[in-house]
Amino acid sequence: MNLIEEMGVRAKAAKTSLATAGTAEKNKALLAISQMLLDNTEQILGENGKDLEQAKANGMSQSMQDRLLLTKERIRSMAGACEKLAALEDPVGTVEGGHVCPNGMRITKVRVPMGVVGIIYEARPNVTVDAAALCFKSGNGVILRGGKEAFHSNRCLAELMRKAIRQAGFPEDCIQLVQDTSRETSLMMMKANGFLDLLIPRGGAGLIRAVVQNATVPVIETGTGNCHLFVDASADLNMAVEILDNGKTQRPSVCNALETCLVHRDVAKTFLPMMKERLDAHQVELRGCPVTREILGDCVVAATKEDYATEFLDYILAVRVVDSLEEAIAHISQYSTGHSECIVTKDLCNAEAFQKYIDAAAVYVNCSTRFTDGEEFGLGAEIGISTQKLHARGPMGLKELTTIKYLINGEGQIR
Amino acid sequence: MNLIEEMGVRAKAAKTSLATAGTAEKNKALLAISQMLLDNTEQILGENGKDLEQAKANGMSQSMQDRLLLTKERIRSMAGACEKLAALEDPVGTVEGGHVCPNGMRITKVRVPMGVVGIIYEARPNVTVDAAALCFKSGNGVILRGGKEAFHSNRCLAELMRKAIRQAGFPEDCIQLVQDTSRETSLMMMKANGFLDLLIPRGGAGLIRAVVQNATVPVIETGTGNCHLFVDASADLNMAVEILDNGKTQRPSVCNALETCLVHRDVAKTFLPMMKERLDAHQVELRGCPVTREILGDCVVAATKEDYATEFLDYILAVRVVDSLEEAIAHISQYSTGHSECIVTKDLCNAEAFQKYIDAAAVYVNCSTRFTDGEEFGLGAEIGISTQKLHARGPMGLKELTTIKYLINGEGQIR
Repeated sequence: MNLIEEMGVRAKAAKTSLATAGTAEKNKALLAISQMLLDNTEQILGENGKDLEQAKANGMSQSMQDRLLLTKERIRSMAGACEKLAALEDPVGTVEGGHVCPNGMRITKVRVPMGVVGIIYEARPNVTVDAAALCFKSGNGVILRGGKEAFHSNRCLAELMRKAIRQAGFPEDCIQLVQDTSRETSLMMMKANGFLDLLIPRGGAGLIRAVVQNATVPVIETGTGNCHLFVDASADLNMAVEILDNGKTQRPSVCNALETCLVHRDVAKTFLPMMKERLDAHQVELRGCPVTREILGDCVVAATKEDYATEFLDYILAVRVVDSLEEAIAHISQYSTGHSECIVTKDLCNAEAFQKYIDAAAVYVNCSTRFTDGEEFGLGAEIGISTQKLHARGPMGLKELTTIKYLINGEGQIR
Repeated sequence: MNLIEEMGVRAKAAKTSLATAGTAEKNKALLAISQMLLDNTEQILGENGKDLEQAKANGMSQSMQDRLLLTKERIRSMAGACEKLAALEDPVGTVEGGHVCPNGMRITKVRVPMGVVGIIYEARPNVTVDAAALCFKSGNGVILRGGKEAFHSNRCLAELMRKAIRQAGFPEDCIQLVQDTSRETSLMMMKANGFLDLLIPRGGAGLIRAVVQNATVPVIETGTGNCHLFVDASADLNMAVEILDNGKTQRPSVCNALETCLVHRDVAKTFLPMMKERLDAHQVELRGCPVTREILGDCVVAATKEDYATEFLDYILAVRVVDSLEEAIAHISQYSTGHSECIVTKDLCNAEAFQKYIDAAAVYVNCSTRFTDGEEFGLGAEIGISTQKLHARGPMGLKELTTIKYLINGEGQIR
């Protein structure tokens, strides 16, 4: 047995008491985690400091360093997330349906935890707490494998959480952190059939691709968002500028940010200069089709096919002028990653056609793609945003971390 | 592009009109398929005859030949399955939930087809029609890849179905059959990311393992059922014999058949001889633990660990005497494939503990595991029985062939 399989065996032994625990006990443990994090803020900051020092020495980019950084406020926010989870409804045990069969057998469909969930993520220590707490509340054992850059922070956070749940009466192996952050342990997780019931990668496109290509355990693909905005001929152009600006510049590094703007030819001459003026305030680089460049001039870089296929996650926007709704839908169908897509229009038929024909987790009319988010959708905390169609699509909350089980009770019925 | 990718492109082009079609149009096409099969019974039997001739020449086993064989009655039954599907409720378009956000945005969660579904199966021509009809009704394009032994039958059935849906106004590429039945096309399907939204293997443990190990597209694992019956100390022993006999001998080749019987020590001396007498009528071979052999004698083969892990799909039963409910649960937890497990008991606490701690798709108290079946569970036709926890667990009907999509409508909301 390799390292991950050994952890899997421990997780399997521990998970039963968690899977069958009552909601009140689980909530108590979540509040204990919250308190434990607050009580040990100094220690967490100290460990995080070691990671940051190393990161600076290795020349990590400023934005990566910012993701790695913990502050008192960020620790309070992690603790707060655990408290919020404690307040959320517990999906485990929900009766999803059932009926009495003609022969008198009673069938009940109940919601149960998945079992053991693996999470592979990058250098964001907040994921350690968020993911562990979500798995805990949904009754799942969790095996966390964070990026090596956050190792000291993650180890400290995991140990504190294990201590908290142990004190609350749960086996500490309900939450485990992979201490060996080599590429090998990542691969072991992808192949841990029989030990992991589900593997969720949280991170950039490269990580997700690696997991999808290599995993033999069930995976939920998350996150990659090549999101489009289509400004229809009938659009309220001021609204379109607001939605575009919000989608592109409010937080460019996240998956629900906009990457491409498609503009109907009839409004291109009016809209493109309005758009440019607004985006110039954030120094957004534009990469446009020939018509866009005709209208806006050479300050716009010529867009390549690759630009249309790229999730920039940066102050860059691809722009294309299209002749019709159909052309916009065709463009999106070609390049979309199935995350979030938006039309701004006043035309009812076009709005309906867009929502009918676009194949994505979230299809917007006249509001920002930035809303694709568990909190905004009312699920509470989320473990990620699924861009696949199996099991879960869009923001995944507690319910998406569970499965169902049929209970069948009879009095000797045979077939 | 390889063969499967080319088929995938055709399926993608065809599926849109199917995905957005009304239920009435789809039902009309299903009835047209049914009529087309009935009208061309002679042609189907002729093509099936070619497969059977080849099978006999290749020395195919009798039971395999029986699976391959089509008769007038079986063709009527395939046609009947299409009619039944036409009568079932259409999951597409169902509103699964929704709410108005605090900012006034309206979120609606609607059920939509998966897109393009691939099915890999063995030499059972009835799967060609069942799977195509299920995918069609649920609005999905389908790419079928059946066993080479059934090639003539499958090609004939697929052509007839394509003709029927074309006449009913749908693109014939909604239903496609892979004409090249080499191992390569199977592998191509497993790696057809971006072309297949879901791949379902239907067949023996070897096929399913190959798909799980090799697939990079989303897969639903189906079918392997190492199912157990536990005869508790308080069991009605006559009921236990009936349920055991039904589970083992009524149709041993199917996934919900019983493979192992666990017997509480307190009733072993009474129950085992009763069991043996009943199973002897079907010449069931028994493979037992030392205690079983002590009670029943040397006519019982000594069971190995491998026997406990094997899905015999035959007139063979592994038997083990256990000291307690806990030992029974531990045995099942070690060997179960998560399909169907049963306890026979009069003890309420034991029944509840069994249903709580056994981690399987269907957990039975006092009735036969043979009921794990879409029809019996009231789903109507099924595409398979999922033994994984992701997306679907247990019998999968039309709803399990769909996914959801969020529609968000606003008046310019930004974040």
